[in-house]
Amino acid sequence: MDANTLKELLESVAAGRATVDEAVARLKRLPFEDLTYAHVDHHRPLRKGFPEVIFGEGKSPEQILGIANAMVEQGDTVMVTRLSPEKAKVITEKYPDAVYHRDARVLVHEPRLAKPAGKGLIMVIAAGTSDIPVAEEAAVTAKTMGHNVKTLYDVGVSGIHRLLDYNEFLAEASVFVVVAGMEGALPSVVGGLVDKPVIAVPTSVGYGASFGGITALLAMLNSCASNVSVVNIDNGFGAGYVAALINSL
Amino acid sequence: MDANTLKELLESVAAGRATVDEAVARLKRLPFEDLTYAHVDHHRPLRKGFPEVIFGEGKSPEQILGIANAMVEQGDTVMVTRLSPEKAKVITEKYPDAVYHRDARVLVHEPRLAKPAGKGLIMVIAAGTSDIPVAEEAAVTAKTMGHNVKTLYDVGVSGIHRLLDYNEFLAEASVFVVVAGMEGALPSVVGGLVDKPVIAVPTSVGYGASFGGITALLAMLNSCASNVSVVNIDNGFGAGYVAALINSL
Amino acid sequence: MDANTLKELLESVAAGRATVDEAVARLKRLPFEDLTYAHVDHHRPLRKGFPEVIFGEGKSPEQILGIANAMVEQGDTVMVTRLSPEKAKVITEKYPDAVYHRDARVLVHEPRLAKPAGKGLIMVIAAGTSDIPVAEEAAVTAKTMGHNVKTLYDVGVSGIHRLLDYNEFLAEASVFVVVAGMEGALPSVVGGLVDKPVIAVPTSVGYGASFGGITALLAMLNSCASNVSVVNIDNGFGAGYVAALINSL
Amino acid sequence: MDANTLKELLESVAAGRATVDEAVARLKRLPFEDLTYAHVDHHRPLRKGFPEVIFGEGKSPEQILGIANAMVEQGDTVMVTRLSPEKAKVITEKYPDAVYHRDARVLVHEPRLAKPAGKGLIMVIAAGTSDIPVAEEAAVTAKTMGHNVKTLYDVGVSGIHRLLDYNEFLAEASVFVVVAGMEGALPSVVGGLVDKPVIAVPTSVGYGASFGGITALLAMLNSCASNVSVVNIDNGFGAGYVAALINSL
Amino acid sequence: MDANTLKELLESVAAGRATVDEAVARLKRLPFEDLTYAHVDHHRPLRKGFPEVIFGEGKSPEQILGIANAMVEQGDTVMVTRLSPEKAKVITEKYPDAVYHRDARVLVHEPRLAKPAGKGLIMVIAAGTSDIPVAEEAAVTAKTMGHNVKTLYDVGVSGIHRLLDYNEFLAEASVFVVVAGMEGALPSVVGGLVDKPVIAVPTSVGYGASFGGITALLAMLNSCASNVSVVNIDNGFGAGYVAALINSL
Amino acid sequence: MDANTLKELLESVAAGRATVDEAVARLKRLPFEDLTYAHVDHHRPLRKGFPEVIFGEGKSPEQILGIANAMVEQGDTVMVTRLSPEKAKVITEKYPDAVYHRDARVLVHEPRLAKPAGKGLIMVIAAGTSDIPVAEEAAVTAKTMGHNVKTLYDVGVSGIHRLLDYNEFLAEASVFVVVAGMEGALPSVVGGLVDKPVIAVPTSVGYGASFGGITALLAMLNSCASNVSVVNIDNGFGAGYVAALINSL
Amino acid sequence: MDANTLKELLESVAAGRATVDEAVARLKRLPFEDLTYAHVDHHRPLRKGFPEVIFGEGKSPEQILGIANAMVEQGDTVMVTRLSPEKAKVITEKYPDAVYHRDARVLVHEPRLAKPAGKGLIMVIAAGTSDIPVAEEAAVTAKTMGHNVKTLYDVGVSGIHRLLDYNEFLAEASVFVVVAGMEGALPSVVGGLVDKPVIAVPTSVGYGASFGGITALLAMLNSCASNVSVVNIDNGFGAGYVAALINSL
Amino acid sequence: MDANTLKELLESVAAGRATVDEAVARLKRLPFEDLTYAHVDHHRPLRKGFPEVIFGEGKSPEQILGIANAMVEQGDTVMVTRLSPEKAKVITEKYPDAVYHRDARVLVHEPRLAKPAGKGLIMVIAAGTSDIPVAEEAAVTAKTMGHNVKTLYDVGVSGIHRLLDYNEFLAEASVFVVVAGMEGALPSVVGGLVDKPVIAVPTSVGYGASFGGITALLAMLNSCASNVSVVNIDNGFGAGYVAALINSL
Repeated sequence: MDANTLKELLESVAAGRATVDEAVARLKRLPFEDLTYAHVDHHRPLRKGFPEVIFGEGKSPEQILGIANAMVEQGDTVMVTRLSPEKAKVITEKYPDAVYHRDARVLVHEPRLAKPAGKGLIMVIAAGTSDIPVAEEAAVTAKTMGHNVKTLYDVGVSGIHRLLDYNEFLAEASVFVVVAGMEGALPSVVGGLVDKPVIAVPTSVGYGASFGGITALLAMLNSCASNVSVVNIDNGFGAGYVAALINSL
Repeated sequence: MDANTLKELLESVAAGRATVDEAVARLKRLPFEDLTYAHVDHHRPLRKGFPEVIFGEGKSPEQILGIANAMVEQGDTVMVTRLSPEKAKVITEKYPDAVYHRDARVLVHEPRLAKPAGKGLIMVIAAGTSDIPVAEEAAVTAKTMGHNVKTLYDVGVSGIHRLLDYNEFLAEASVFVVVAGMEGALPSVVGGLVDKPVIAVPTSVGYGASFGGITALLAMLNSCASNVSVVNIDNGFGAGYVAALINSL
Repeated sequence: MDANTLKELLESVAAGRATVDEAVARLKRLPFEDLTYAHVDHHRPLRKGFPEVIFGEGKSPEQILGIANAMVEQGDTVMVTRLSPEKAKVITEKYPDAVYHRDARVLVHEPRLAKPAGKGLIMVIAAGTSDIPVAEEAAVTAKTMGHNVKTLYDVGVSGIHRLLDYNEFLAEASVFVVVAGMEGALPSVVGGLVDKPVIAVPTSVGYGASFGGITALLAMLNSCASNVSVVNIDNGFGAGYVAALINSL
Repeated sequence: MDANTLKELLESVAAGRATVDEAVARLKRLPFEDLTYAHVDHHRPLRKGFPEVIFGEGKSPEQILGIANAMVEQGDTVMVTRLSPEKAKVITEKYPDAVYHRDARVLVHEPRLAKPAGKGLIMVIAAGTSDIPVAEEAAVTAKTMGHNVKTLYDVGVSGIHRLLDYNEFLAEASVFVVVAGMEGALPSVVGGLVDKPVIAVPTSVGYGASFGGITALLAMLNSCASNVSVVNIDNGFGAGYVAALINSL
Repeated sequence: MDANTLKELLESVAAGRATVDEAVARLKRLPFEDLTYAHVDHHRPLRKGFPEVIFGEGKSPEQILGIANAMVEQGDTVMVTRLSPEKAKVITEKYPDAVYHRDARVLVHEPRLAKPAGKGLIMVIAAGTSDIPVAEEAAVTAKTMGHNVKTLYDVGVSGIHRLLDYNEFLAEASVFVVVAGMEGALPSVVGGLVDKPVIAVPTSVGYGASFGGITALLAMLNSCASNVSVVNIDNGFGAGYVAALINSL
Repeated sequence: MDANTLKELLESVAAGRATVDEAVARLKRLPFEDLTYAHVDHHRPLRKGFPEVIFGEGKSPEQILGIANAMVEQGDTVMVTRLSPEKAKVITEKYPDAVYHRDARVLVHEPRLAKPAGKGLIMVIAAGTSDIPVAEEAAVTAKTMGHNVKTLYDVGVSGIHRLLDYNEFLAEASVFVVVAGMEGALPSVVGGLVDKPVIAVPTSVGYGASFGGITALLAMLNSCASNVSVVNIDNGFGAGYVAALINSL
Repeated sequence: MDANTLKELLESVAAGRATVDEAVARLKRLPFEDLTYAHVDHHRPLRKGFPEVIFGEGKSPEQILGIANAMVEQGDTVMVTRLSPEKAKVITEKYPDAVYHRDARVLVHEPRLAKPAGKGLIMVIAAGTSDIPVAEEAAVTAKTMGHNVKTLYDVGVSGIHRLLDYNEFLAEASVFVVVAGMEGALPSVVGGLVDKPVIAVPTSVGYGASFGGITALLAMLNSCASNVSVVNIDNGFGAGYVAALINSL
Repeated sequence: MDANTLKELLESVAAGRATVDEAVARLKRLPFEDLTYAHVDHHRPLRKGFPEVIFGEGKSPEQILGIANAMVEQGDTVMVTRLSPEKAKVITEKYPDAVYHRDARVLVHEPRLAKPAGKGLIMVIAAGTSDIPVAEEAAVTAKTMGHNVKTLYDVGVSGIHRLLDYNEFLAEASVFVVVAGMEGALPSVVGGLVDKPVIAVPTSVGYGASFGGITALLAMLNSCASNVSVVNIDNGFGAGYVAALINSL
């Protein structure tokens, strides 16, 4: 329940469109609701500006559906990340309007935000073709939160002219999400070219001494460009979320 | 040479206050100047909004002074990080107006920015007393870049009421830098309380299985709070820099 | 064979209810019994207060059944951990009264303890929904050893108010088992709120730089709360066992 | 300020032995006191049963003294761990009654507890001579908290008969702290012999592939004895603290 | 081709039982034979006392058979380790007399050694039931090389009396192979009890912080018992081989 | 498009064999072509002497085919590495002339180079039979780039005479690719025997403490032979590519 | 007290050369003697064939001297390893006959063994000049235990002919200790040349990715030669001890 | 003794300028000379084209001088790497003509090579000022081996225009040595710009998660540029040596 929903509910009561009992029923679940296997944090939209996002991995479809139900009842946007196609099917059967982004493995239901939450542009850049799913997770997240997003894929440092060619394009953005696996050098190069914050996302793309993304992670943490901060390996969601928050300022 | 300086220089030429030769002499060093041991990036203030910052570790006092000289000649703010008191002395002898922040081990000379670069407030929080030097590095950096900074120290999670007591205080800030060693849990807790971006800085404070800050770094990368991004261990400078950029939007 | 069983056996002999030969047959297996592939430690109930617990992973169903048979013959409670449903079926076919806890992957047969072994309450807390199986392993273990257990799930630090809301609830317990994956911060926060021992259990829940639980493990070992000790990743059984021992004092 | 002190203070006011202003002055610092470089947690004795313990490493003598002063004013026991002899001197000059335990590197001032906080015995066992300082840190901590402590040193597994010879001695204790470096096997062996909780402390004693205590830490985490939990490398203080809490039940 | 076979061949030629051409055909393959995908080291029995042993993992059944054929033609014992049942079937179809040890995953064909190669006894000890396959690999290897082997399984340190009970049994052996996973403490304890060399074999048995055998490996390398040396994780073959060599002295 | 193709195209235009529009169509894709999921680097043959090589892992067959199509249209050799047989089938259905090297998992289409690109000989050596696929990847790469390649397999250090026997053979080569898993010692030994550059390739062959090739990688990086440089684990392609470049000088 | 000394003592009593009280005084310390900071294991010579060896690191000179005194009183050989020259001086002042081997950092007092404990020869081989101190520790240990030892230094694999030249020399030995840092390849090569057990000792010699001996350790554990077992990094003592035990068979 | 020296010696004998005895005296030390602490590999110049290079670390000045003496007597160039100024002094006292390169910590005596060993140019590039000592080690090595070397320092990726400005300069070189610490991205970028082999050298420059050069090393091993191979951390010597060999082809 975000601030707008709360206001509407109270106005409904004031206007007699909702009984006090109905309002109490919805409000009494604040600040959280205990489903035994989950304490759904209904206070979060008020406190954080965006409802709880469901991490789909390691939860059963029934658990995900249960949490989603509780959120829908509060009128909240439901977003589920790391959701396999099989589990997504269980949700979309109940909520046919929900959209499942297969590449990004993200499901979104009833995004409430009609107009951009931030004026700036978020640019999501991926070093290679194999990094696209993680980049898409970032892009879908920021879009769901109401932001303008542009993407630019396969412009890694082995052919640096590809990136340099987009120099004017880069000048448009307010904040960058840069996704790369293997040696993870792209955020440093982008960081050196722009005067905006860069959220670097290492991916598990690579083999041998890439160690499932550790190499890219370490490289990004040691970036010689000062405007780079880093999120967890393959954490496109977190990068998109941080970028959206920054763009909301 | 930043955009303002450049404009002033050109106006001086236009107004006859400077000869063309003088202007050429200053401009011809763009985009960089080769001192053999360093290629000073004079193009950076134009490209990035802030001049090159000198990393003091691993450079001799002579090298640092040489780079500083080249920057001063361009009219740029000089900032040196990770500078030992001994090396700082060599610089302050030549530039007595330079200020050396002993805790933060940062030297600043001729900060050009008279008014805040951003309207918002940057809040720097440290988990423990031993984390203060890194937090101060972040604070000095952001202040030098022209931002409002407040600090809050020794409010780690073993006494969570200390942090909760500052709840209203937290509501004022636009962006957070949260510094912690040991188990590195504070950024997650702060991240869960606020709806603004949090830059987490792991420190090398701890012993045994803290592994010089690796534990704190990993904990922050795995934060369950979605608004947290991370910089290198002990990298107060980077965190302050990123926070300043975000606050400039 | 625990102390009570031993006493009963000797009284049976004294009362003529059992022949000396029968008693010898049962006792001669002490202190252990060699099944070639296992030396069943029949001395353990006497020495440790609870019989050997069978670690189900890496043993064939036949081996598990063989060890269980030997223990049942001694009148001991049989508890098997890390038991897959397939293997559990083999055991429950022979011992239909055995209970298989699917979430916890623990099988229990003939728990002998009728009354609580300790007066206090053991509270098992899990940070997230995905941590529940490990938490349940701890809870089942402590209950099987005759203790009162309460559980509290999905109260991680990204919504710290959920935990703080249970403050009075926390005051009831004598010992805590706190289970968390990802950044593993919950034991530190709980540890800072209570004046009782906290057994922290890192889980392998997470991805990327969580490294299968290493991050949570390290964070817990570096807890700034002094009342925290730690067991192996995903070792719900060990935590429940230690908590039961502490609660028995 | 612990519960007893609080009661005394209020009784003094009731009896006119203290003015209301004096009481207010002492109480108003609750729940914490901001010394800029530290938020002293005066609420801790009430919440946790023992005041904050000062971690001496990484703090200047002035900072330690400042925190100690604030605590002494509240009538709290002051305990400083990981304190070098040089820093200890600064404290003992101001507080000559304070005792500095050189082996354990722990300083204690005004322990308030006259009678044992627990009835049981805490046994501290060290595998080798080089592990003694860590073991002493545990012993001093538990004693300062008001408990009976016995020690047994240099009884490692390469001569297992030394430990077995103390079998009856082991039967006396309620809780064990077992300290070992190198392969860290002793807690497993002790754990297999007793039916009480064992707090294992890995030490950084060893060389080569002992990796500063990592090997011992990992071995203890993987103990096949179910009654073992573990604290950080060289964390004698934490082990003594947990043991004292357990013995207080 | 070992020294005996070589002598027999030459005697056959001397006695006219073999033609010079036949002898040349067999001998010309010395010191190795190039099968393109393998250089079979026919010189090894002469140089090392035992023919090349085929590591079955990562080789196709055809490659294994090809190498085996080349060795059989030289009259050498064929031993294949880490052989899956599926691959073993391909070999036993061609060589029905070959014996496949399913537990140890070792296949042996035509062991030439009729009498013990060493007078002493090799004792193979395993800490747990799950360690038996690795222990069996060691036992089969040493037996194939012509040695007396006894085994003792599931006598780990959590019930140290099980091992101590076998004290006289231990006194019989000339060399020990001690196999353990988890904390890997058993070799240290055995090493402290006997005055003979102990070959320690860490196994990948365990979970969480056992890291696939790394913990056991490190523990064994740091053993406080001076008579312990170590082989690779799960390398039962190597331990059996070294034990056999030692027993041959 | 390499330099020759470019020249031919321009000559065609000059000779009227191609219209200006046709030439423009082909040239306008320089320096790269945006397929959304890939920026094909058509500038690479001009800049680097060999077209982009497609890394097959983590790309869908459709993506690989799309990139291949774009390259074929430019008249470039197409080489795809780490290509599974299933994906290879999709490519060979469209391009039946393409050759798929199953061992090396490399597909090559329309190699343009008719005569050796370098005069020297590249020798590819593998320590064991299981290392052959990686060695073949190196060999196929260098051959596709137009070089003479010889291979020598299964000559590891446990039978050093096998390698020494090929001493004259070694003298022929200009550059060496040496492939080894396990302890990775072969490059050091080869490096000590020859006066030419040695490219060492660690493989993931091994078990236990080989850690998927890390041991071999580290050993090669620490080689006491000064003429050894190293590529990533299992990176036969990179080694073949570097060897080809060296041989082109 | 070893078996001979014990026998002599009892014969002295039988012959009236010693009183019963004197004998009791010496024997009553068996099986160990508690010096508070050490439990000296007087039973070890009887159980293990050689008295306890004092690890000098991490013990104060007073502690070392105390243990030495207790052993001298029992008539035992005193051997102290990892002893700095400063501490050695304290011992040699009390025991002027003690010999301090500066390279090996080993002190030996009153070696009791007059004739070789084993008939065979122990060969200690070091790869480089910097590995000599560790090799000397092995050599001194084996000699003190009464064995014939030969050494061969600086014959690493970058010049393999140096080792091959000593082929006949190698044939003399019964057991090998092979010491190497950096890539640690020498034990594999020696292991491939001989049919005797090889004890490999990794050293911390190297830099960068040698990681203080980890690379050499891992390489040796993954040796493709089957007759190699390994001890801890820089553990020359352990290698010499194991070699001596093997040579005693 | 290299091929030229050998020829000269034999011609001297033929011409009567040297007696047979003199020649024998010099030649009999082939292939190596045993100084007890070192086997000087006099065969190396013949086999490898350049004499043994002395690794100065971990050797005493006396040992270094002894080896140098033996080499000088053979007429060989003496090169000592990783030599501290203190040790260098001992050598230059005896050989005043020797040149000590302080930055590179390399000493060179009597370089025999008058004319360039290769026609091409070796370009040594360093990312930052702190990487210069390692880069100089590479440059001095290649020059000593008779090659043309150019250097380019402080052109890291945070200001990529600095490097791109040198594009024509880069086109001159036959082989590149690229030195970088921190995130180690420069070799990838250079590798993408040139069609020549690139030897990447990670340095230990950095802090926190740079882990003494591991991050740079891993990044370079995972380079997306195919023409990059890697040497050990800080191994400027090895890179210069490999570059020289390549340039000699």
